[in-house]
Amino acid sequence: MTELQTLPHQSSPISSRKADHIDLCATGDVGFRAKTTLFEGVELVHDALPELVVDDIDMSVELLGKKLRVPLVIAAMTGGTERARGINRELARIAEERGYGFGLGSQRAILKGEPRETYMVRDVAPTTLVLGNIGGVQAKSLETAKVLELVEAVGADALCVHLNPAQETVQPGGDRDFVGVVGALERLVAELPVPVVAKETGCGIGPRTAKKLAKAGVRHVDVSGAGGTSWVAVETARAAGQERSLGVTLREWGVPTAASVLITREARPRFKSIIATGGVASGIDVAKALALGAHAAGIARPVLQALHSGGRDGALAFLDQVESELRAVMLLVGARDVRALRRVPTLL
Amino acid sequence: MTELQTLPHQSSPISSRKADHIDLCATGDVGFRAKTTLFEGVELVHDALPELVVDDIDMSVELLGKKLRVPLVIAAMTGGTERARGINRELARIAEERGYGFGLGSQRAILKGEPRETYMVRDVAPTTLVLGNIGGVQAKSLETAKVLELVEAVGADALCVHLNPAQETVQPGGDRDFVGVVGALERLVAELPVPVVAKETGCGIGPRTAKKLAKAGVRHVDVSGAGGTSWVAVETARAAGQERSLGVTLREWGVPTAASVLITREARPRFKSIIATGGVASGIDVAKALALGAHAAGIARPVLQALHSGGRDGALAFLDQVESELRAVMLLVGARDVRALRRVPTLL
Amino acid sequence: MTELQTLPHQSSPISSRKADHIDLCATGDVGFRAKTTLFEGVELVHDALPELVVDDIDMSVELLGKKLRVPLVIAAMTGGTERARGINRELARIAEERGYGFGLGSQRAILKGEPRETYMVRDVAPTTLVLGNIGGVQAKSLETAKVLELVEAVGADALCVHLNPAQETVQPGGDRDFVGVVGALERLVAELPVPVVAKETGCGIGPRTAKKLAKAGVRHVDVSGAGGTSWVAVETARAAGQERSLGVTLREWGVPTAASVLITREARPRFKSIIATGGVASGIDVAKALALGAHAAGIARPVLQALHSGGRDGALAFLDQVESELRAVMLLVGARDVRALRRVPTLL
Amino acid sequence: MTELQTLPHQSSPISSRKADHIDLCATGDVGFRAKTTLFEGVELVHDALPELVVDDIDMSVELLGKKLRVPLVIAAMTGGTERARGINRELARIAEERGYGFGLGSQRAILKGEPRETYMVRDVAPTTLVLGNIGGVQAKSLETAKVLELVEAVGADALCVHLNPAQETVQPGGDRDFVGVVGALERLVAELPVPVVAKETGCGIGPRTAKKLAKAGVRHVDVSGAGGTSWVAVETARAAGQERSLGVTLREWGVPTAASVLITREARPRFKSIIATGGVASGIDVAKALALGAHAAGIARPVLQALHSGGRDGALAFLDQVESELRAVMLLVGARDVRALRRVPTLL
Ligand SMILES: Cc1cc2nc3c(=O)[nH]c(=O)nc-3n(C[C@H](O)[C@H](O)[C@H](O)COP(=O)(O)O)c2cc1C
Ligand SMILES: Cc1cc2nc3c(=O)[nH]c(=O)nc-3n(C[C@H](O)[C@H](O)[C@H](O)COP(=O)(O)O)c2cc1C
Ligand SMILES: Cc1cc2nc3c(=O)[nH]c(=O)nc-3n(C[C@H](O)[C@H](O)[C@H](O)COP(=O)(O)O)c2cc1C
Ligand SMILES: Cc1cc2nc3c(=O)[nH]c(=O)nc-3n(C[C@H](O)[C@H](O)[C@H](O)COP(=O)(O)O)c2cc1C
Repeated sequence: MTELQTLPHQSSPISSRKADHIDLCATGDVGFRAKTTLFEGVELVHDALPELVVDDIDMSVELLGKKLRVPLVIAAMTGGTERARGINRELARIAEERGYGFGLGSQRAILKGEPRETYMVRDVAPTTLVLGNIGGVQAKSLETAKVLELVEAVGADALCVHLNPAQETVQPGGDRDFVGVVGALERLVAELPVPVVAKETGCGIGPRTAKKLAKAGVRHVDVSGAGGTSWVAVETARAAGQERSLGVTLREWGVPTAASVLITREARPRFKSIIATGGVASGIDVAKALALGAHAAGIARPVLQALHSGGRDGALAFLDQVESELRAVMLLVGARDVRALRRVPTLL
Repeated sequence: MTELQTLPHQSSPISSRKADHIDLCATGDVGFRAKTTLFEGVELVHDALPELVVDDIDMSVELLGKKLRVPLVIAAMTGGTERARGINRELARIAEERGYGFGLGSQRAILKGEPRETYMVRDVAPTTLVLGNIGGVQAKSLETAKVLELVEAVGADALCVHLNPAQETVQPGGDRDFVGVVGALERLVAELPVPVVAKETGCGIGPRTAKKLAKAGVRHVDVSGAGGTSWVAVETARAAGQERSLGVTLREWGVPTAASVLITREARPRFKSIIATGGVASGIDVAKALALGAHAAGIARPVLQALHSGGRDGALAFLDQVESELRAVMLLVGARDVRALRRVPTLL
Repeated sequence: MTELQTLPHQSSPISSRKADHIDLCATGDVGFRAKTTLFEGVELVHDALPELVVDDIDMSVELLGKKLRVPLVIAAMTGGTERARGINRELARIAEERGYGFGLGSQRAILKGEPRETYMVRDVAPTTLVLGNIGGVQAKSLETAKVLELVEAVGADALCVHLNPAQETVQPGGDRDFVGVVGALERLVAELPVPVVAKETGCGIGPRTAKKLAKAGVRHVDVSGAGGTSWVAVETARAAGQERSLGVTLREWGVPTAASVLITREARPRFKSIIATGGVASGIDVAKALALGAHAAGIARPVLQALHSGGRDGALAFLDQVESELRAVMLLVGARDVRALRRVPTLL
Repeated sequence: MTELQTLPHQSSPISSRKADHIDLCATGDVGFRAKTTLFEGVELVHDALPELVVDDIDMSVELLGKKLRVPLVIAAMTGGTERARGINRELARIAEERGYGFGLGSQRAILKGEPRETYMVRDVAPTTLVLGNIGGVQAKSLETAKVLELVEAVGADALCVHLNPAQETVQPGGDRDFVGVVGALERLVAELPVPVVAKETGCGIGPRTAKKLAKAGVRHVDVSGAGGTSWVAVETARAAGQERSLGVTLREWGVPTAASVLITREARPRFKSIIATGGVASGIDVAKALALGAHAAGIARPVLQALHSGGRDGALAFLDQVESELRAVMLLVGARDVRALRRVPTLL
C-alpha cells in the first residue's frame, strides 16, 4: 500500500483551498473547452526508413544541470497539507525511478507557517531534478535570503517563479498587485545560486512577456500554456458573484501551449530551457513540443488524475504510455535522440 | 421603485411602432444569426507580467469633449412615448452615476408633435455626455436651425445622424429616398455648434461610406456594425408580404462590427472618434474594439434586455460585469490605460 | 385559368423522357448536395450612404441586342410535348410582361418530328429576347441551314448551343461522341445571322473550355455552373445499373457558378455576354453574379418549381421576390444601374 | 464455382496471423478515421468541350516494363495459407482478364517454410504484371540470391520491398530493428535483375524517405499513404496491453496518399514509377492520383471487401465501377489518354 492511499483526507480551514484545488483538478470539469494547445495542428512527418533500432533510442536530455532519462517534468502541483505530502512523495518517488523532473507546488504555505515536511521529497528522490516553487507576487516582497531558505528547505535544484495574473484576478481574495514581479525575477536570477524558471500556470507566455523575461536575465521558462488545465476555471468553481461571472468570461483566456513554445523559441537572447507544459496529454504531444523547440515537456493534471483514479500503478501506467508513445514517434520520424527530434521538420 | 417600473405601457396608435421596437428588442429573436461581429476572430495576447495594480487601471477616455470614466456609451434607443421616457431616464441616470455616454433615440417624434419631455434627461444626467439623434433621411429636409432646436431641446453635447437604409428598405412605409444625406451631413458639420456623429444602426460602415463621410467633413462615427441587433430582423417581424420576404433575405446584411472598426480606422483624414457599437456583449469585446482602433464602444439591446428583465439592478449588474471584464482584460494585456490598450497587439 | 392548368399531362412514349425531366425537376431531389455555387462566399459591401432614390434604380441591361428591364433570363427548359408547350407559353408570357429574356428548351424534338408548335411563343412574347436551343452534339451533324431553320421556326433572337457531356455520360443511351462540337460552334458563329451562346447545363465552364470557346469565335456564354440543378442527378434518377452507379459518383461534378463567372470574365478576347445560370436562387445571387462580372443571370429550376406549385401567380411571386431583392441590394451597395453594380467591389 | 468459394477456411496456428489480417480487413473497422487521403481536397476541372469519343479513350499505361489496359494495380495482400492461395488466384485471374497489375502478399511465409504454392498465379495470369513482395526488415538479412529465388519462385516481374515501421511497432512481437533497410534496398536495386519497388503499407512516403530512396538508387515507389487501411488499426485489434494503447494513439499516423504523391513527384532524380495506393476508392480518386503525378493507382482492401462480400462477381462489379468512373472523368476533363490526364490541371 502506498503512502498516498494511507493518508487521511485532511480538511482544516487553512488548507481547504489547496484541498479544493486537488479535488477540482482530480475530478472536476476544469479544462479549456474551445481553445486547444494547438498541438493537433502540428504534424510530424512519418519516415518509412528510420534506420534505427527501437532499443537504441535515447530519450535523455539535460535540463537545469541534471540529466533526465526522458524529457518530462511532473509539473508543480501541491504542498502544505498532509494529503499534498502524500501526493508529492508518491510522484517524486516515481520521478526518481523513471528519471523525470519533479516540480513542487507553491511553497507559499511554508511562509504561512504550514509544515514544510509536506514538501520534503529528497529522501525518496535523492538524484531527481527537483524544482522549488513560489509565486511572482510573493517573491517580490521576499528578500532573496528568505527565498533561498525556501529552496534549501526542500533541496531544490532550481526555483520556479510562477506567474498567474489571470488566476489571481478571478480567485476570491486573489493578489491583484503585479507591480515589481519583473524586478523580483531580475533580482532572484542575479542573487540566487540556483537557476530560476519563469513559469506560467495555464495562460502561456506571449511575445511581450518573453521579451520582458529575456531582458530581466531569465534564462529558463515553463510556458504552461492554454489548452489543458484552466486555472480560471478552477477558481471560478470556487468563486461566487461577480468573480464567478468574470471567471466564466475569462475561462478560455491565454496563449495556446504550442504557440507559446514557438514564441519563446524566438526570444533573444535565447532561453536555455523551454519547458512545454499545459495540456500535454500524450507522447505525441511531447514529441511535437520538442520538435517545435521545447527542451522538455511538463504534465500536471493528467498525472494527478491518473494517480487519483489508479494510485501509484495508475500513474505509472499513464507515464509508461507517454514514454512508449514518445519512443514510437521518435522511431517513426527517424530521430535517434532528442537532439535529432528537435531538428525534425514539422508541418503547421 | 424606479420610474421605469411605475410607467404604464402606453399604446396609442402614433407610438405603436416605437413600442413594437422596444418589445421586439427586449424579448424577440432579432439578432443576426449566421453573421457575427467578428470579434471572436480577434485575439488579445496574454501578458503574464502586467506590472500593474488592478486598482490603478484607468479606463477613462475623452469622447466628444467630455470625459467618460469607462469607454462605454449606452447607444441610441428610444424616445417619444411615456415608456420611452422611463427607459431614457433610467439609463441616463445610470450613465451619470457610472460615467458612461448616453444616446437618445431618434428625435423625429418631436418633429411629429410627440411630447419632447420623453427625451428629457438632463435633470438626472447633468454632467453626462448626452447624444442627440436624428435620421439622415430626416436631416436632409430640415433646416440647420430646426436641427439645432432638437439638439438644444434635450441639451445634447453632440448629434448622432443615423444612417439606416437597410432598415428603411424593409420597414413598411419606410423612407426610400436617400439622395442628399451626404449633403445634409456636410451642412450640419459646418453649421452646427456641436459635433456630428455619423451613426449606422446595425449594418456597419464600409470603405465607400467611410470615404464619403471623411470627404463630407464628418469627424466622428459610430460604426454600429453587423453581428448584434439586426434592424432588418426587427422590421421584418413587423412587416407583411413582399417586405417581409425581402427582410428574410436581407437579415444578415451588413459589415461586421470588428471589420467596420478596422475600415474606419483607415479613413483619411482620420476620424477623431470611432464608436464601436453593434453586438458588443462583454468587456472583452469592448477591449478588442479599442485594441482594433475604436475610441469607445456602444451597447444598445443588451442594456435594454438587462433593464427589461431585471430593472435598474439588472442593468447595473450587466454593466458591472462589462466593466469588470474590461478591467481584467486591461490588466491581463498589461494596459494601464486606454491609450495603452489601443496600442496592444491583436491577432486576427 | 392559365393555359398551363388546362393542358392535359401527355405521356406518349416518345415524350416520356421530357416528362420525366419536368417531373424530376419540379419535385425531385436533383440539386447538388455538397457543392455550392460559391455565391455564399461572395460578400457585397453595404453602403450606408447610397445617395439614391429606390424608384430611380435602373435594373435594365442590353443583352444579345435586346433590352431587358431586369438582368434576368428564364433559362432553357422544355419543348416537344403538349405539357412543355404550356410551360413555355406561360413563362414566355411572363418574360414579355416583365422584360426578362426567355430560353426555349432543346429543339432537337423538332428534328425528331415532334410538333414545333410546342416551342411557339412569339404570339405571347412578341418583343421578348427569345433564345433558341440545340445540343452541341446535335449541331455538329446539322448543316447550318437546318440550324437556321430551327432558329427561324421559333423566331429566336439568338441560339444557345448547349454543352452537356456529364449528362450525356450518365444518361441511358446518351450521346458519347463529342468530337466536332468546337468546329460546329465555330461554323455556326461564322454562318448564322443570329448570335450564338455556348451554354453549359449545370457543370459550368472552366478555363480550358473558355479558351476553346474564345478561340472558336464564340462571343456569348451561359456558364450554367454547379450548385443548382445537377443534371447528373436528374439522369441518375432515370438510370439503372452501372450508369446509375456512375451517376451517383459524378453527382457533384462541375465548376461552381460563381467560379465559372470569374473564369469566363478572364477570357481574351472578352466575351460580350456572360449569363450566370446555375443555382441562382435570389436577387442577392443575381447581384453577386453581376458584381463578379456577369451581364445577366439565368434561372431554370426554381422558376419551374414556383410555376409547378403555385401556377402563374406562384411564378410571378417568386420573380417579384427576386426583383425586389436585386433592387434592394443595388440600393444598399449604392448602385444606381447595372453598370455601377458591375463595378461594385466584392469580397471573396 | 470459383476456387475461392471452394477453399476451406484454414486456421492452423502458424497461419493464424495472416487469417486475422484477412478477416479484419474484409469486415473490420480498420480504416483511418479522422485523416483522409486528401483526394477530396483535389478538384479536377470540368471541360464542357472534350472533343472526344468515349470509346476512343485509352486508359493504358506502361508500368515496370509491362502494359496495363488500365492504370490499376491490385495491391499486395496475401499468401502463405490455403485461403490466401484462393484469394491470390482469384484476383490474379481478374488482373489477367482486365489488364491490371497484381501484387502478391509478403513472401516471408515461404522463407518460414509455408508452401510456396499459395503464391503461384502464373498459370492463371501468364501475361500479367506480377509483383513479388518482401519486407525491408527481412530483406536486409537475406542474400540477394535468396531474394532472387523468391522472385523466381513466383515468376514476378518486379519486387516490392515493403516498409512498415509503424505496423511493426504496434504488432505484438513485431520487428523493431530497422537499421540496414536502406542498404538492403541499395543492394537489391544493384544486384537484382528485376525492378525494385519501395512500398509503404499505409503510412505514406514523406520527403526524407523519398530522398533516402532516391539516393539509394530506388526508381520505383508505391506510396501506400494514409487515409485508407490503417495497419496500425489492424495490429491494434490483435494487440493487448501497452501495444494496444500505443496502437490507439498511433492509429492516424502517416502521410496522406495525395500528399505523398505530390512529395514523391518532387524527388530528384525523378522516380520512374509512382504507384498511388492507400484509400483509393473510386475512379475519380485514380484520376486525381494520376493528375497529381502518379503513374498508376493501387487498391488493396476495397478489392478484398468486394471479393469477400460478393465473390468474383462482386470484385468484378467493383472494378468495373472504378474503370467506368475513370473513363468518365477522363472524358470530362478532355483527356484522351493517361499522358493527357497526367497534364490536366488540378485545384488543391
Ligand atoms: C492541482 C494543481 C495544482 C497546481 N499548483 C501549482 C502551483 O502551486 N504552482 C505552479 O507553478 N503551478 C501549479 N499548477 C499548474 C501546473 O503546474 C501547470 O502549469 C498547469 O496545470 C498546466 O498543465 P496541465 O494542463 O498539464 O495541468 C497546478 C496544477 C494543478 C493541476
Ligand atoms: C430598441 C432599440 C431602438 C433603437 N433606436 C435607434 C434610434 O432611434 N436611433 C439610432 O441611431 N439607433 C437606434 N438603435 C440602434 C442602436 O443604437 C445600435 O446601433 C444597434 O442596435 C446595434 O447595437 P446592439 O447590437 O448593441 O443593439 C436602436 C436599437 C434598439 C435596440
Ligand atoms: C426541366 C429542365 C429542363 C432543361 N432543359 C434544358 C435544355 O433543353 N437545354 C439547355 O440548354 N438546358 C436545359 N436545362 C438546363 C438549364 O437551362 C440550366 O442550365 C440548369 O438547370 C442550371 O440552372 P438552375 O440551377 O437554375 O436549374 C434544363 C433545366 C431544367 C430544370
Ligand atoms: C489484407 C491485407 C494484407 C496486406 N498485406 C500486405 C503485404 O503482405 N505486403 C505489403 O506490401 N502490403 C500489404 N498490404 C498493404 C496494401 O498493399 C496497401 O498498401 C494498404 O492496404 C493501403 O491500401 P488500401 O487503403 O487500398 O487498403 C495489405 C493490405 C491488406 C488489406
